[in-house]
Amino acid sequence: MTIQQQLEHWQDRISKLLTKSLPSDDTSPQNLHQAMRYGALNGGKRIRPTLVYITGQALGAELSDLDSPALAVELIHCYSLVHDDLPAMDDDDLRRGKPTCHIKFDEATAILAGDALHTQAFEELASHPFSAKAQPQQLQMIQLLAQASGSLGMGGGQAIDLESTSKMIDLATLEQMHRMKTGALIKASVLLGALCAGKLNQQEQGALELYADAIGLAFQVKDDILDIESDTTTLGKPQGSDLAKDKNTYPALLGLDGSKQKLQDLLDLSLQALAKLPYNTESLAELANYIVNRKA
Amino acid sequence: MTIQQQLEHWQDRISKLLTKSLPSDDTSPQNLHQAMRYGALNGGKRIRPTLVYITGQALGAELSDLDSPALAVELIHCYSLVHDDLPAMDDDDLRRGKPTCHIKFDEATAILAGDALHTQAFEELASHPFSAKAQPQQLQMIQLLAQASGSLGMGGGQAIDLESTSKMIDLATLEQMHRMKTGALIKASVLLGALCAGKLNQQEQGALELYADAIGLAFQVKDDILDIESDTTTLGKPQGSDLAKDKNTYPALLGLDGSKQKLQDLLDLSLQALAKLPYNTESLAELANYIVNRKA
Repeated sequence: MTIQQQLEHWQDRISKLLTKSLPSDDTSPQNLHQAMRYGALNGGKRIRPTLVYITGQALGAELSDLDSPALAVELIHCYSLVHDDLPAMDDDDLRRGKPTCHIKFDEATAILAGDALHTQAFEELASHPFSAKAQPQQLQMIQLLAQASGSLGMGGGQAIDLESTSKMIDLATLEQMHRMKTGALIKASVLLGALCAGKLNQQEQGALELYADAIGLAFQVKDDILDIESDTTTLGKPQGSDLAKDKNTYPALLGLDGSKQKLQDLLDLSLQALAKLPYNTESLAELANYIVNRKA
Repeated sequence: MTIQQQLEHWQDRISKLLTKSLPSDDTSPQNLHQAMRYGALNGGKRIRPTLVYITGQALGAELSDLDSPALAVELIHCYSLVHDDLPAMDDDDLRRGKPTCHIKFDEATAILAGDALHTQAFEELASHPFSAKAQPQQLQMIQLLAQASGSLGMGGGQAIDLESTSKMIDLATLEQMHRMKTGALIKASVLLGALCAGKLNQQEQGALELYADAIGLAFQVKDDILDIESDTTTLGKPQGSDLAKDKNTYPALLGLDGSKQKLQDLLDLSLQALAKLPYNTESLAELANYIVNRKA
């Protein structure tokens, strides 16, 4: 399978799992459940669950174990998008070419839907019947997901992003912000997949973290480049929206050529990290390449 | 100790634990951490952690085990207050006599602070070093907390509350809403305390759930009565605010006398449930009496 086919395969699997695990549209309170489903079943790229699956499979985890952290990381990601799009936050009306949750429903419902997706991520991880291989790491997985999502991870990164908008920040601050805002959950996705295969030794964990850190930043650098070079239809959101919102970006700090060089450096770093792992990491390498070369 | 002294004792303990466990005001991102602390260290009644402690102690749990679910339920409660007060939700400017989180900080920070308090509840429960007595129930505790907080519990109750404001609803719908919005977390508090003492048999769990269900509704009936009979200074929020917001209340459906009778019936129910338990449940009975007789 090409990486594109693999992505489609995992996208399909996680969409089916989300469809099944989220309360149905006609479960009371219906409006809330419709908004949760709208916020989660929206044709996302599903990069995080794909990382869970690909990493887990490289390390020998069971597919049925991987379903649970794959769901959990995607639920966290979807909750964060619903909240980040709110008028008080990034104030986005469009997400993947469709009205954002608070536009389709209303602000209160979007806040509650994000909250409920957030809770469901932890319910999923805490209630999954893991195999004997993964179960001993179940509490560690919950801790890891919480740390990656909280005020020292994703949530803190969003706070720094909001604070630093319309201010000049330096490259170190920008990277710290992205490491928290998107990098922490990407790193957690890789480690959660690995933990389904068993306990991790320090060396493996170090290499996986280096890989995840590099592709997490690469993902953001590429996003910033796409915001300049792509078009609104391909992106599913207004092209140039970072610029319009006075967001800090890699191109603003490094220029477009500098950003492209940075992207290549991060790809190299990620591949060097994989080379240290005693597994077949071909799919992880392909995913890194995909992140760097994607068109949207 | 009188129940008032007990409450003060547990209030003091949980406030110290929250002070210690929340990231400090000068941890980056500072604004977010200040808002989290503001939202959590606000002189609340701490009814939910008190229920964890009192129930757990009645059943023989270790104090150090009880600290963790006590923190977790209060973190969930505080996150829900921060979000419920938002302009798009209940739009409250005052909470316990002080500016609400989004007034003191801003809306975006309040959304993120609520989110981060929410995450920290699960991190707390997943990372606590429980004793051998409580540890086997750790995953069950996380599940229970998630179910009580999510779209079929507290979050769903808030959604029904928002939907039904300015509409006439019947008593059954009102009770279902309160069972979800406040009752679910109160029930979880009681069961989490109990689970720290060991596995629960069905009869014990049934009696504890009956008790929790009755005091949960009683708490709300009393709140509705206080909104009419108390004054703004005692309440720490504008007296008559339910009426002003066209909220569905017990007095609106049952009248003031009918509501007071309802309150007495619920107290009786809660005491009958306790009588079925083979433990010293005096403190739980005193807490039920306190809930029904409190002035604010």
